[in-house]
Amino acid sequence: MIRDVIVQGLIDLVGRDAALYRPEDLLAYECDGYTVHKRAPRAVVFPTSTEEVSKIVKYLYENEVPFIPRGAGTGLSGGAIPLSGEVILSLVKMRKLIHVDLQNRLAVVQPGFVNLKLTNSVASKGYYYAPDPSSQYACTIGGNVAENAGGAHCLKYGVTTNHILGMQLVLANGEIVEIGGAPDMPGYDLMGILTGSEGTLGIVTEITVRILKNPEGKKTVLAYFDQVEDASHAVSDIIAAGIVPAALEMMDKTAIEAVEAGNFPVGHPKGLEALLLIEVDGIAAGIDDQIDEIIEVCKHRKVTQVKVAENDRERASWWANRKTAFPAMGAISPDYLVQDGVIPRSRLPEVLEKIRQISEESGLRIANVFHAGDGNLHPLILYDARKPGETELAVKVGSAVLKVCADVGGSITGEHGVGIEKQNEMCFVFTEEELEAQLCIRDVFNPNNLLNPDKLFPKPSRCAEMRVAR
Amino acid sequence: MIRDVIVQGLIDLVGRDAALYRPEDLLAYECDGYTVHKRAPRAVVFPTSTEEVSKIVKYLYENEVPFIPRGAGTGLSGGAIPLSGEVILSLVKMRKLIHVDLQNRLAVVQPGFVNLKLTNSVASKGYYYAPDPSSQYACTIGGNVAENAGGAHCLKYGVTTNHILGMQLVLANGEIVEIGGAPDMPGYDLMGILTGSEGTLGIVTEITVRILKNPEGKKTVLAYFDQVEDASHAVSDIIAAGIVPAALEMMDKTAIEAVEAGNFPVGHPKGLEALLLIEVDGIAAGIDDQIDEIIEVCKHRKVTQVKVAENDRERASWWANRKTAFPAMGAISPDYLVQDGVIPRSRLPEVLEKIRQISEESGLRIANVFHAGDGNLHPLILYDARKPGETELAVKVGSAVLKVCADVGGSITGEHGVGIEKQNEMCFVFTEEELEAQLCIRDVFNPNNLLNPDKLFPKPSRCAEMRVAR
Repeated sequence: MIRDVIVQGLIDLVGRDAALYRPEDLLAYECDGYTVHKRAPRAVVFPTSTEEVSKIVKYLYENEVPFIPRGAGTGLSGGAIPLSGEVILSLVKMRKLIHVDLQNRLAVVQPGFVNLKLTNSVASKGYYYAPDPSSQYACTIGGNVAENAGGAHCLKYGVTTNHILGMQLVLANGEIVEIGGAPDMPGYDLMGILTGSEGTLGIVTEITVRILKNPEGKKTVLAYFDQVEDASHAVSDIIAAGIVPAALEMMDKTAIEAVEAGNFPVGHPKGLEALLLIEVDGIAAGIDDQIDEIIEVCKHRKVTQVKVAENDRERASWWANRKTAFPAMGAISPDYLVQDGVIPRSRLPEVLEKIRQISEESGLRIANVFHAGDGNLHPLILYDARKPGETELAVKVGSAVLKVCADVGGSITGEHGVGIEKQNEMCFVFTEEELEAQLCIRDVFNPNNLLNPDKLFPKPSRCAEMRVAR
Repeated sequence: MIRDVIVQGLIDLVGRDAALYRPEDLLAYECDGYTVHKRAPRAVVFPTSTEEVSKIVKYLYENEVPFIPRGAGTGLSGGAIPLSGEVILSLVKMRKLIHVDLQNRLAVVQPGFVNLKLTNSVASKGYYYAPDPSSQYACTIGGNVAENAGGAHCLKYGVTTNHILGMQLVLANGEIVEIGGAPDMPGYDLMGILTGSEGTLGIVTEITVRILKNPEGKKTVLAYFDQVEDASHAVSDIIAAGIVPAALEMMDKTAIEAVEAGNFPVGHPKGLEALLLIEVDGIAAGIDDQIDEIIEVCKHRKVTQVKVAENDRERASWWANRKTAFPAMGAISPDYLVQDGVIPRSRLPEVLEKIRQISEESGLRIANVFHAGDGNLHPLILYDARKPGETELAVKVGSAVLKVCADVGGSITGEHGVGIEKQNEMCFVFTEEELEAQLCIRDVFNPNNLLNPDKLFPKPSRCAEMRVAR
């Protein structure tokens, strides 16, 4: 006998096997990749089709029950965390690859389809899906759309929004609509506004994405530096030389220490201050020249050692080392908080120095591992949640880092979204009027704020406080 | 003594030299590049700053007078044409290049700054602005933002929306807001929705655009074919080979006849059925291989002649020939109507055949000159406005062509916008619900429909008629 009539109503809609509601079953849904705040949902349901999503949403809408769409739960800003007993629609059972059309370079997937599986599905034909978040082995394309996910190779190829051609979605009232689909569509760019809207405007139930042909050639360089500043300048110099690498990643001393203690060490020298991981792809014939130029730039910036990956195996090991940097932090710190600021590339040395100062003043170590080429920083704030007050301190340090980014004309998120983590920091980059304009748009799609409520925007009047506080 | 109090009010705001109101002065503002419909505005004002735009808009908003922003007036879908005595805000006096930041690869311009001038301003340093509509010598970047303008080189580099980093705009009530600006911004993608909104959501008064480094190398191929179908297949084959040319343009027999009779003939052979103009750019070392591959593909598709531009002068002459194709139609027909449909590239041969049939049935010649690589067709419908009924027939033929594009999963506009020309054809690609959703968004920004009123969307209930009629 289920006492919650809403839960009973959901079970009637989807069946007992497609719903979780016992407290012990809800534990796994208390948070996503942002672990600072936890709260159980009212229930979790697992629809298997667009029509089922629509039915569930209609039911919740009519009963005025708030709800949250959720993919793999790898999000880092808490966008899928319940705040007050929302029902979670988990889309992991909608994980089909519906259609691949190589001639027109597109694929249609359900939202629960895992990012890396798409590349794996078309790799044998020589194609791939470009956006590659570090969590790509687990995260879903629906989640990527919600967060407008990036990845190491987004410097050259753009983020998720640049690879979405169309989508089917269920609106907050349960209505099903199609947007995009053709190469160019007239009217307002609703695909742009939906992508990165963090589940506040609709639930994406089918996504048409761009598939790219594998580049003919690819080479990867690893460069070691004795000074962070030299590495930063090398980044600017490479771009200034007119090269657009496929990826241009940087790790600092603490990050290197972590990845070497993690599951995929590659033997970086001990005590190294900074490294760059640079990949160039494209027409095979041009690549060696670019690699030579990159090596020249690094030498000019006092690189201590620079090597080119000898084969695919070596390249893959370097990438595994880099891409597991976040989980590898676990090897050197009980807890960590990932930040996600963006800055104009030319301000890199100055901002890294300010982050070093914040670390020193707060007493918390900060590791830097990031997409240097597009100025997307990922400071990892290391802390121990068991020590009283340290979680709060880590959150405060994260906010201070974002303020530095905003102050140099940057942004508070490159690819992880705002969620609940950075709601107040929205005030660093938007005026009250600008936030009001965005809320008006939310109200069009999500008039009674049942769909992922109270995320993404600061609480009313919070901006004035934030501005005074800093 | 001016009898119209609104005109007097505007003169009080901007001064007598910055306003036109005499019937003879308004003639030039009766239409833009879409000449099928003409109507004089109530007045034209020429603001010189964001603050002045704001003042004018506030005044018009308070007096409930409708108004239209206008750039160079080169738009092809009638977006700047008055429908019922609107006041035009001409932005041609806001034509400053405000700021260039080569290190961060951006420039800030006023909306009336001419597209080509931007490239000219940074060319000596080795940079350029990528979107290159054929009207780039005259059209403004503000107008490019309104229409989300494309161009021949958008196959590789994307359209205007991919090159806009931020904007300042005046809302319908006169409020000034800033959007974008940083490399990535959280919240909803308002820049995407503003770009291509055809002057219905706000008046852009400052634009931050991306500047690109000139490619190291560039080569251009001209290929002649005896059959349109062979040329179409060559287009698909080039893309299928994994080459993304910077530009991949096609002209058919009638188009070639026109450009050879225009101001920039290059001596194409007489009676030619189709030609491709293909440009490859990037790292110098890889280009020759790509050119060889393109030539191989063309040979496989029975190319009758293929040549590589020997120098920049020859390349420039080929582009001048192609880019003046629209005005060159004047040499072979008293009037012409440009259409702007988009189709999946793989449907090219089939759609061109259907357009040929429409031409035959209607008795109107149709020239095809278009961005073949991205499936963006520009059928030019040739007619004589002096013959009774022929303008109406040309409009009808244009609509029939768009229906063909929509029916193969394409779109009714690639880069020219909807304006007043394709309002009803919106019903080919959107349901009533989808149009309603877009109108809700318009109402957020433009609540009383004073800003470029009655454009872009079909008149209510028109969709049902359109669907029955075809």
